Amino acid sequence: MPDTTERRARTRKAARTEDSPMSQTPNSSLSPAGAVPRPAREIRQLCLEGNDAAAHVAYRASEVIAIYPITPSSLMGELADAWSAQGVPNLFGTTPRVIEMQSEGGAAGAVHGALQAGALCTTFTSSQGLLLMIPNMYKIAGELTSTVFHIAARTVATHALSIFGDHSDVMATRQTGWAMLFSSSVQEIMDLALVSHASTLEARVPFLHVFDGFRTSHEIQKIEMLSDDDLRALLPPAAMRAHRERALSPDHPVVRGTAHNPDTYFQAREAVNPFYLATPAHVQRLMDALAARTGRQYHLFDYVGAPDAERVIVAMGSACETIETTLDALVKRGEKVGAVKVRLFRPFDARALFAALPLTTKVISVLDRTKEPGAAGEPLYQDVVTAVLEDAQSASPRFAKTPRVVGGRYGLSSKEFTPAMVKAVFDDAARPTPMNHFTVGIVDDVTHTSLPVDASFRLEEKDVVRAVFWGLGSDGTVGANKNSIKIIGEQTDRFVQGYFVYDSKKSGARTVSHLRFGPDPIRSPYLIEEADFVAVHQFGFLERYDTLALAREGATMLINTPHDPATVWERIPERVRDEIVAKKLRLFAIDAFRLAHEHGMGVRINTIMQTAFFALSGVLPREDAIAQIKHYIQKTYGKRGEVVVKANHAMVDGALAQLHEIKVPAAGSRRAAASQTPAPSTNGNDILARLLAGGGDSLPVSAFPV
Amino acid sequence: MPDTTERRARTRKAARTEDSPMSQTPNSSLSPAGAVPRPAREIRQLCLEGNDAAAHVAYRASEVIAIYPITPSSLMGELADAWSAQGVPNLFGTTPRVIEMQSEGGAAGAVHGALQAGALCTTFTSSQGLLLMIPNMYKIAGELTSTVFHIAARTVATHALSIFGDHSDVMATRQTGWAMLFSSSVQEIMDLALVSHASTLEARVPFLHVFDGFRTSHEIQKIEMLSDDDLRALLPPAAMRAHRERALSPDHPVVRGTAHNPDTYFQAREAVNPFYLATPAHVQRLMDALAARTGRQYHLFDYVGAPDAERVIVAMGSACETIETTLDALVKRGEKVGAVKVRLFRPFDARALFAALPLTTKVISVLDRTKEPGAAGEPLYQDVVTAVLEDAQSASPRFAKTPRVVGGRYGLSSKEFTPAMVKAVFDDAARPTPMNHFTVGIVDDVTHTSLPVDASFRLEEKDVVRAVFWGLGSDGTVGANKNSIKIIGEQTDRFVQGYFVYDSKKSGARTVSHLRFGPDPIRSPYLIEEADFVAVHQFGFLERYDTLALAREGATMLINTPHDPATVWERIPERVRDEIVAKKLRLFAIDAFRLAHEHGMGVRINTIMQTAFFALSGVLPREDAIAQIKHYIQKTYGKRGEVVVKANHAMVDGALAQLHEIKVPAAGSRRAAASQTPAPSTNGNDILARLLAGGGDSLPVSAFPV
Repeated sequence: MPDTTERRARTRKAARTEDSPMSQTPNSSLSPAGAVPRPAREIRQLCLEGNDAAAHVAYRASEVIAIYPITPSSLMGELADAWSAQGVPNLFGTTPRVIEMQSEGGAAGAVHGALQAGALCTTFTSSQGLLLMIPNMYKIAGELTSTVFHIAARTVATHALSIFGDHSDVMATRQTGWAMLFSSSVQEIMDLALVSHASTLEARVPFLHVFDGFRTSHEIQKIEMLSDDDLRALLPPAAMRAHRERALSPDHPVVRGTAHNPDTYFQAREAVNPFYLATPAHVQRLMDALAARTGRQYHLFDYVGAPDAERVIVAMGSACETIETTLDALVKRGEKVGAVKVRLFRPFDARALFAALPLTTKVISVLDRTKEPGAAGEPLYQDVVTAVLEDAQSASPRFAKTPRVVGGRYGLSSKEFTPAMVKAVFDDAARPTPMNHFTVGIVDDVTHTSLPVDASFRLEEKDVVRAVFWGLGSDGTVGANKNSIKIIGEQTDRFVQGYFVYDSKKSGARTVSHLRFGPDPIRSPYLIEEADFVAVHQFGFLERYDTLALAREGATMLINTPHDPATVWERIPERVRDEIVAKKLRLFAIDAFRLAHEHGMGVRINTIMQTAFFALSGVLPREDAIAQIKHYIQKTYGKRGEVVVKANHAMVDGALAQLHEIKVPAAGSRRAAASQTPAPSTNGNDILARLLAGGGDSLPVSAFPV
Repeated sequence: MPDTTERRARTRKAARTEDSPMSQTPNSSLSPAGAVPRPAREIRQLCLEGNDAAAHVAYRASEVIAIYPITPSSLMGELADAWSAQGVPNLFGTTPRVIEMQSEGGAAGAVHGALQAGALCTTFTSSQGLLLMIPNMYKIAGELTSTVFHIAARTVATHALSIFGDHSDVMATRQTGWAMLFSSSVQEIMDLALVSHASTLEARVPFLHVFDGFRTSHEIQKIEMLSDDDLRALLPPAAMRAHRERALSPDHPVVRGTAHNPDTYFQAREAVNPFYLATPAHVQRLMDALAARTGRQYHLFDYVGAPDAERVIVAMGSACETIETTLDALVKRGEKVGAVKVRLFRPFDARALFAALPLTTKVISVLDRTKEPGAAGEPLYQDVVTAVLEDAQSASPRFAKTPRVVGGRYGLSSKEFTPAMVKAVFDDAARPTPMNHFTVGIVDDVTHTSLPVDASFRLEEKDVVRAVFWGLGSDGTVGANKNSIKIIGEQTDRFVQGYFVYDSKKSGARTVSHLRFGPDPIRSPYLIEEADFVAVHQFGFLERYDTLALAREGATMLINTPHDPATVWERIPERVRDEIVAKKLRLFAIDAFRLAHEHGMGVRINTIMQTAFFALSGVLPREDAIAQIKHYIQKTYGKRGEVVVKANHAMVDGALAQLHEIKVPAAGSRRAAASQTPAPSTNGNDILARLLAGGGDSLPVSAFPV
């Protein structure tokens, strides 16, 4: 929370501008056209992850928060619990009551009960947790009750459990009568969380606010915080009062939760229609109100791309960021392509979708991040198909020639979705007969659904510094990187992005940190594909993993090694040496464990490795960077006295002194040619070996037992 | 079970013929064309309700049955439990193990576990019970495990709980990857239960076998039983063996229930595709095998109606029976109308749907028995839309001009769906711009979605005897009627149908029995609209309910009354007397309570009222009817000695002697004109009064608070 420590605000007075070759058309008939003038105001920018952004708004707008932790949404409940314990007040000056229940079923029931007592309520969940809430969700929606559930969307367990992200959980609730608003980035989470809390009060339809689990939920971005004034400005006082007045009370007794018979149920069920019909307009009005305060204009469906696009992707969630990044490049090349970002998935406003689509659209490729075996098609695809056929059969169709609609699946269980995959979708849409019901991101050699992807198509921008760090789950690597992000994101005007790939085995296994730093907002919700800097914090990893797979030619490599600078080259596995030579890397080594031990820090190598990164990466000028680290140490350890601060400062200086560049020979070893990835094979032992070496992504469908 | 008492078989050797003006086109390319020759065989015909028919097959085909009772599916579990306790064997000669769990979540988990041990398993549920099974359903499907859940589909609680039927529960599971096969009648339940159990073994996709709760689940019909030989002929031994061999076992260890990471989950998820693609063909092949044995041919989608139909309804569940009955009449009049009965809803085989639709189709009206507020459309509608647009955009579209598709909701929470409503749908489809997203069966005066219905359009056939009985929940009325159905259905060649309308308050409240008897199979899964016979077993009901609303002109009325035949006319409320006169009813009275008391039967009036019904209704010749009752008494009470049998026989004779015709005056009272139903009004007290009087069906949407 802004009121607690650890966050530092930086204020500025400037409207960010979008340098894009594309039109950002105001595309909903519900909102005023044109750019939104934004009043000058104090802007606080912080670096936080998506769960934190959602919890920020949810906590301040709620009085009762029932929780049950489940990955990857746990942080939201944990933060709310901690803030409540600290007595952090909500917008109304009271401290929200946070209750941990026995399961998500109980959490949903507790929310339902508290809502009936007139409280403003929220909860957070994912995956199976959401499934257990379904019975209560029908009741809450049927009774037209205002609440928001924030969902870090996660794969529902099928053939295997997965803690990673896709939309299979939220799609399992699309029939319950809840509104569903999707956020694509951390900034959007903060913004649309507020729109959700405000809209549900106006509309009396409960909202799921959805973002991609183990992507946006855990991605750190520098965002503009919404202030309490922003929240107060959007949350409608009259609707809030009406919500409270609907509380069950002996003062004005009403009966709810009755049983209906066939004579009346149907009619009473249809009585909700006006509320659903009115919901999209409420959402748009509140999006417009947000834009008036912040300059960030959202629509129910946001179009980006060429104004005369012929091929248009429709998608939701973090994929929209990747698509927009790719469009930047493709439109510059003159391709007639575009995309519709779906914000409000339910209630589905087909009219608003059509208003967003360019009249030149010939092929619509709908991307669903879920799989429903046996269905006529995935959910978003079927909705777009419905909208298109209904338009074509209406009295005055919008399109002279009905666009062709195809659908595909991507990104199941956090499978990477990259610019190359976006391009593959657009490329296929340009074919005379585009594939329908395709997959993208895998090789399906069984039912042949997959689109070919040109992996060499990459869009890492020149002015962005990309750094990858290999660490152990508990060695401080992630913490150090989060510090670096805060220093750069909150102390400078650069934009930052951090994402941390944990193995699902968590503590003790490897973690790979992916950090980007650049002059513009970073819309790349996928792992780094070409790194400028690769740090290996555990020397043993060189043997086990292909740590240099992401290193670009000429990149900088930093190794934490116990070996002497003079001998370290010989200690590096031959395969890695070959790759260093072939990619013309600059190589640096530091013995961080010895240095930490000498400074009485035990095995805590985080400050040392962070110093080395700042010294080598060029994200900031070296002197500035070191000054910032020292400043941060002062801030963090100042309370513990000058001695501690000095010891840490000494360690920073020591790190700089002990950082050695290792001379890389001009030619590799005789085995250079043999270091290539072996050709795909589906022999059982091979599969296991490739999985362990981190090569699972390249395994085709046929490699898997059913 | 056939092995237990109470059921009597009647054998005959004859193929039933369908006297229909309509073509019954063999409409799936998957099955051979033409009528199916059926070998002469012994046919056992029994009268049973839908739950009983499903349990019959499920029990015989299973080894482990995990249950948790929920209305309206409870009977299936209760029967299985009772049969297991009696040691009734399954097809394999063992007694199924029936386990009642702590909830439906536990039942689904127990099934999942038993399946992993290689057992053949089933369970039965409805509504919220099914919702609690969703997490396990994803796992069972994801692991490609064969099982069948039999679902008496029931409304999910929303603004109010309802124990009645619609498809909102099963639609909440359509994304789980289960196959879904729908039965429309009791005969179909027996047949498609077997097809489900056989198909799941062949396909390795789990099946939901679905029928309409509180309609087909509780409707009694005379059906042809499937024999054990029939079951054995369809259940595939090799697939059954393969299912058992997939059991987890230390002899051939495999790992299941693992966790996947982003590298492999997506590919492994797509590995199931071939199984889903193959499922429809398995189902059709087994439907064909069933037809070869029984003469009853089903297809994935069955077309009925005019071969050159221009307006076609697509629907599933019991509505298909009503639609077919209505088509009989409309096609005779020369209307170009037809319908597609959806059997296999998942996997959705668009090709088979298209093969079923006549090429002359201009308008497709899709009927969904569920409501999904905020969706682009209800599920079946969206599937048909998807099929139509994909066909239109294919290389060789089947239709020269793409048919218009509209969708509507009907029958929520067992709201009646009658021939007049079917006609309303066809009539609207004939308009230049048919309504889309309509409702039918209610008056929606708020968002104006409802189609106008001409309630005078009724299709009660002349040669069918229709009888309505008003009783108290525990006074034996329902039991007596079930007896009558058994006597007529199983002792004669007439067809029967029984449906019992309970108030959801169950015991102690009124029950209205609706019985039809006729020479042909009865396809009328809706309440009687014009009764030939109305019995009121509680004299007090005359005051409280509009007991004669369904009586046709010239019908027979039977009253159980304590009053003397000479004075009973004066004791009847004036409003009722007026109606008796106006409708020219014949009126009979009997003092059943006194008679029962005199014969030492306490308040058990069931045999007396049944005797009176047989004497008056003309379903059977009077002498035959009485002989049948006495025969049945002999059969039921024979074991308890000659004295008991004689006492009951004496009571039958006494009933005949004490049955008095009451002279009805030629003219009514002065208040005749005032007895009309008051005009609709939505004043709160009026609403309550109309609800209590049984007039809730006529209340419009605006009458209900949101």
